[in-house]
Amino acid sequence: MRVLITGAAGFLGSHLCDRLLADGHEIIGMDNFITGNPDNIAHLAGNENFSFYKRDISNYIFVTGKVDAILHFASPASPNPQSKSGYFNLPIQTMKAGALGTHNCLGVARIHNSRFLLASTSEIYGDPEVHPQAETYPGNVDPVGERAVYDEAKRFAESLTMAYHRFHKVNTSIVRIFNTYGPRMDMEDGRALPNLLKQALLGEPLTVYGNGSQTRSFCYVDDLVDGIVKLLYSEEHKPVNIGNPVEMSILQFAEAINKITGNKAGIVYKENARSARDPQRRQPNITRAKQILNWEPKVDLEEGIRNTIPFFKQKLGLA
Amino acid sequence: MRVLITGAAGFLGSHLCDRLLADGHEIIGMDNFITGNPDNIAHLAGNENFSFYKRDISNYIFVTGKVDAILHFASPASPNPQSKSGYFNLPIQTMKAGALGTHNCLGVARIHNSRFLLASTSEIYGDPEVHPQAETYPGNVDPVGERAVYDEAKRFAESLTMAYHRFHKVNTSIVRIFNTYGPRMDMEDGRALPNLLKQALLGEPLTVYGNGSQTRSFCYVDDLVDGIVKLLYSEEHKPVNIGNPVEMSILQFAEAINKITGNKAGIVYKENARSARDPQRRQPNITRAKQILNWEPKVDLEEGIRNTIPFFKQKLGLA
Repeated sequence: MRVLITGAAGFLGSHLCDRLLADGHEIIGMDNFITGNPDNIAHLAGNENFSFYKRDISNYIFVTGKVDAILHFASPASPNPQSKSGYFNLPIQTMKAGALGTHNCLGVARIHNSRFLLASTSEIYGDPEVHPQAETYPGNVDPVGERAVYDEAKRFAESLTMAYHRFHKVNTSIVRIFNTYGPRMDMEDGRALPNLLKQALLGEPLTVYGNGSQTRSFCYVDDLVDGIVKLLYSEEHKPVNIGNPVEMSILQFAEAINKITGNKAGIVYKENARSARDPQRRQPNITRAKQILNWEPKVDLEEGIRNTIPFFKQKLGLA
Repeated sequence: MRVLITGAAGFLGSHLCDRLLADGHEIIGMDNFITGNPDNIAHLAGNENFSFYKRDISNYIFVTGKVDAILHFASPASPNPQSKSGYFNLPIQTMKAGALGTHNCLGVARIHNSRFLLASTSEIYGDPEVHPQAETYPGNVDPVGERAVYDEAKRFAESLTMAYHRFHKVNTSIVRIFNTYGPRMDMEDGRALPNLLKQALLGEPLTVYGNGSQTRSFCYVDDLVDGIVKLLYSEEHKPVNIGNPVEMSILQFAEAINKITGNKAGIVYKENARSARDPQRRQPNITRAKQILNWEPKVDLEEGIRNTIPFFKQKLGLA
């Protein structure tokens, strides 16, 4: 297949390039680098099955030749209010990527009869009142809250995708992505995993906010990419959760990181700095992914962290 | 003020033109007539304070001269699946009006330092689990449901409006409009009021689905317009519900219509044809409108229906 990937220089986009190239496809990558990083695709330079265009896909998309599939992964995604590339600091670009970008992608998919895959997110569930979250849960998002720029952009993108499917018969699919980690992740994205792993590799005590009882579920990037590609190759149109349902408290997680990295500096507790915007829990119900795609995650936390450490060491100048 | 109104030829847009002209403002009206009706603004032809441009504001907006205020009312709004101008049959135009149209309006507002007022809707609450609905209720909307094209378009529009306020300091406001009726309403919009009033004026028995216990709250258009204009003149930025909190069952309502119109044909009960998409109850909490705008509805159902009858009779060829 000839596959267009928007956000190709992002964490997930670049892994999808690698995987789909390995599967024998031709890839057209696009990214405007406002959050994507050229380093993530530098190794693909010279690959004759990979071409790259620096583009803002919220403005327009122009592709020559046939496009068999489109994976729309372009969007700021970091919830860190301090990060310059997070969606709190790029609110309008985030909303444009979700609405105008999705609209442009669907226009191309309609013309080319392409399979379209939208990168949606567990954020559409907001601060969920149901655990774990199944695809039928309508979510708990305040549309005028600060975090809503990301959540509502993705909710809109899902609705528009379904509208193109129902009205224009475009062959669409929607993946709802839960917390993911691995090489090329944004180490400043403000999530618990990169923060703790950085501290461990630097030999510092790991900071746990509050009593550490808030939980997270982390999926290793290879598992996630495998689920996304299975969805791409399927004929499913309705949203599918892809994520790792193994739920751990932040405290358990910090202890595991110290053990895996051999960090002896222990844990320090700090007052709960959690903003009202941070969900206390989020965990995927992956029943549909199992049934429809025969997919479930295979990489456990220890293996995933070990695979991720070299990337972190390199970025931290420890390699 | 010099005021741009999108959707100027719609039910609410045209009443806003009348009211703001009466208040001494200059009005620039725009509409693409996919759901608006030229008849609604025909009486304004020749008014030197009113100009009109046939435009699709989802594509672009071009205005010469200063714009002091923008009221963004362009959108399909009828929930009737049978109506050609309803949002089920115009799903992509509906989403474009909410996302691209709002984006274009906010761009103009930013350049001109205009007061911006977004027409949002009680539909952002979806099928609510809380009654009545206050502005803090995050709603219950399935983003991939068929009805979501309208709901998510308006939720997105609200988020984008707040993003422009927070990030670009645009002077924005958001009105969440509940069920409204009056002259120039879409008689085919599929809601209970026009259906019943038509039957009553034709001397037919009024059709009540199920046992008629589902409730509605109807606001007369003059009240609604008064609330919107008060919000426009205020400095409020957060969403404000405007609607009539008087809740009636459909049965009570049908009986009232028969009484007001003198229709002797009674009521017939039919099997509940309510689709899963129709909310069973929706009722505004207007505490904020009272406190911030000193607004509450003044027109009771009898007066409102009496004011509406001449329009219906004319449309039905009975005048």
